[in-house]
Amino acid sequence: MTTTGLIHQAAKATTKLQSLTDDTIGMVLCDTAEALRKATEEILAANRLDLERMECSNPKYDRLQLTPKRIEDIASDMQHVATLPSPLGRTLSLTTRPNGMTIRKVSVPFGVIGIIYEARPNVTADVFSLCMKSGNVCLLKGGSDAAHTNRQIVEVIHSVLRTHGVDTAICTLLPSDREATACLLNAVGVVDLIIPRGSSALINYVRDNARVPVIETGAGICHTYFDKAADTAKGTAIIDNAKTRRVSVCNALDCLVIHRDRLADLAALCAPLGAKQVTLYADAEAHQTLQGCYPDGLLMQATEEHFGIEFLDYKMSIRTVSDIDEALAHIARYSSRHSECIISEDSEAIALFQRAVDAACVYANVSTAFTDGAQFGFGAEIGISTQKLHARGPMALDELTTYKYVIEGDGQVRW
Amino acid sequence: MTTTGLIHQAAKATTKLQSLTDDTIGMVLCDTAEALRKATEEILAANRLDLERMECSNPKYDRLQLTPKRIEDIASDMQHVATLPSPLGRTLSLTTRPNGMTIRKVSVPFGVIGIIYEARPNVTADVFSLCMKSGNVCLLKGGSDAAHTNRQIVEVIHSVLRTHGVDTAICTLLPSDREATACLLNAVGVVDLIIPRGSSALINYVRDNARVPVIETGAGICHTYFDKAADTAKGTAIIDNAKTRRVSVCNALDCLVIHRDRLADLAALCAPLGAKQVTLYADAEAHQTLQGCYPDGLLMQATEEHFGIEFLDYKMSIRTVSDIDEALAHIARYSSRHSECIISEDSEAIALFQRAVDAACVYANVSTAFTDGAQFGFGAEIGISTQKLHARGPMALDELTTYKYVIEGDGQVRW
Repeated sequence: MTTTGLIHQAAKATTKLQSLTDDTIGMVLCDTAEALRKATEEILAANRLDLERMECSNPKYDRLQLTPKRIEDIASDMQHVATLPSPLGRTLSLTTRPNGMTIRKVSVPFGVIGIIYEARPNVTADVFSLCMKSGNVCLLKGGSDAAHTNRQIVEVIHSVLRTHGVDTAICTLLPSDREATACLLNAVGVVDLIIPRGSSALINYVRDNARVPVIETGAGICHTYFDKAADTAKGTAIIDNAKTRRVSVCNALDCLVIHRDRLADLAALCAPLGAKQVTLYADAEAHQTLQGCYPDGLLMQATEEHFGIEFLDYKMSIRTVSDIDEALAHIARYSSRHSECIISEDSEAIALFQRAVDAACVYANVSTAFTDGAQFGFGAEIGISTQKLHARGPMALDELTTYKYVIEGDGQVRW
Repeated sequence: MTTTGLIHQAAKATTKLQSLTDDTIGMVLCDTAEALRKATEEILAANRLDLERMECSNPKYDRLQLTPKRIEDIASDMQHVATLPSPLGRTLSLTTRPNGMTIRKVSVPFGVIGIIYEARPNVTADVFSLCMKSGNVCLLKGGSDAAHTNRQIVEVIHSVLRTHGVDTAICTLLPSDREATACLLNAVGVVDLIIPRGSSALINYVRDNARVPVIETGAGICHTYFDKAADTAKGTAIIDNAKTRRVSVCNALDCLVIHRDRLADLAALCAPLGAKQVTLYADAEAHQTLQGCYPDGLLMQATEEHFGIEFLDYKMSIRTVSDIDEALAHIARYSSRHSECIISEDSEAIALFQRAVDAACVYANVSTAFTDGAQFGFGAEIGISTQKLHARGPMALDELTTYKYVIEGDGQVRW
């Protein structure tokens, strides 16, 4: 079948999906989790076929590779999603108008959600469980690097759907070529929402070419501002955690902004980073301060290119400012509006930072490593939105719903 | 200044705008309302210059034309918006996580909103008041037909902003040419949201060319289903109202879907329409039923082209169905997901219709004429969204906000 044919077939399955009860959905997800566990060998075999075509040195290799442990994690995440409260049918507001009609705003599925992603086969299972739980048909456009693995996972999902008499089109794997992406981006009136997950290049391509609504889950260029009134112990722990917990994730720290009056603490703040071989790109004042107090070869002079960059590596830039306004201006200029942090004991400075910083997540005395659906208590995550439309920050089940207004009366008219 | 220069200058004004209190915003809006009243003569003179360039027979003429009454309405709407509760700074959720950090979800402005519209100069003032009240800078891209009028209205707004020491860039009128539209649609990272208001051609152009997030406010192809268990008196009043209240609006009725068992009531249901010269495009069964009971020359045979069309005229199609499932299938196929209605006394049929119909507003025994921000109790309206992302149906102040997460703690880290 052509990609367009697959998309239309999936769209037709929405009615059936939306007629399933939350209990049935829960059973399907639990059975699928169990089936994935049982199919571990087949999935690993398919995964080996994909891995054989990729160089071990490719940074994508680790993301592509599945292990028995990773498959178990995928299965247990799916079981967990099954137990979450349904995001559907919630009354978001209810008003009775003077003429007696009632207006109820109720949460409903989007309908058809397309996900465009790269070489992460776990996304295939995660997206299926979140979309199924929220009543949405999913169109999966995975990367060609993971084609065998994705096909095997979707086969397991389909076998369970068949057992339950559910149309397998509710979870449709599209061909892994560019043409399928183009079809998806142009399916106006059929696809309700597209979420691209992956590199900046992928996200830019989707934004520039999509004619259907898109939620971007983009890069995180994250700052932590160490204020004049900051606590050094908290700052040291937070900076170490935000920078080195996992350098490849979007909530990792990229630039430390430090108040000039606290440069004397900079060596202490950076000590744990030095121990972990983090390269620092420091502006002139910070560089001078750190000379002799930071490992040789890891301390560099910052140039313009070291600000406004998502390092995704053991690297961090340092910028010295004379006051909080200068810190805010630096962040406004270079932030990707993902996660920003202030370390301070001054409640006025904190309040100003919280008000003025335009980002999905604004932290005070907490590591930016917490920008994550599970850490926020959402129980799951389909991505972290860096745009402002519809959803911002970690997105889970609620963010996969829209609403409709249901108006009831007994013959009201308006002249 | 170039359009790009104007857009960047406007974006810089967001910080200042967001530092204003709601009291100041209210004063500015009330003063602007008063200034618009005082400038009635100047505005009408500018409006005459625009009207002189347009044929009276152009359907846009009426929308373009201002009168003292219309200017008074614009001013009093602005005063009303000033009195509405601020949509900003509301705590949408507040959770404390097991590690003691608090996560507060708080409503904030988008930042910079662009509106692309045609020959309706009242939109200029409406958008300014809604954007100012919700803390958003507005970029106004009006139609060239209304260029003189828009310039005059914005001049009045700017004179009041200057009096209050507010940067006039918070309300920026862009050139009325196509190039300005292109600049706006491509201002990634500067413009947070674009709302096109106008013809399908305009909306399609924006959707196909925008690289920044867009909320579509599109056509309304609206159905009313007269069920087997419908009340004839309610049905007659609702159909008359939904079709003839104002035929040029998006919530007007386009297609009556009638249960076959109720064809005997069709003549009664359509009697008020006949008196108002509504042309009916009836399918074979409905046509046969109405022959001799509906004014000569106003009863036509429906062809495929009469379904799935927004008439915006004294025209309505009629489709006969054998049960509610066939009605739902017809609506699913032809609806633009704006406003759909069921007339029925059967609570099961109503519940099924409410659940199954995918539209912003789903009515039971109420005229679709109520799809309107003021009628919903929102106090104002910036448009009616026909998409599902972010906002659906009537959009007012709340829909002009996004949110951010504010996380507070005392040094929490995550390893």
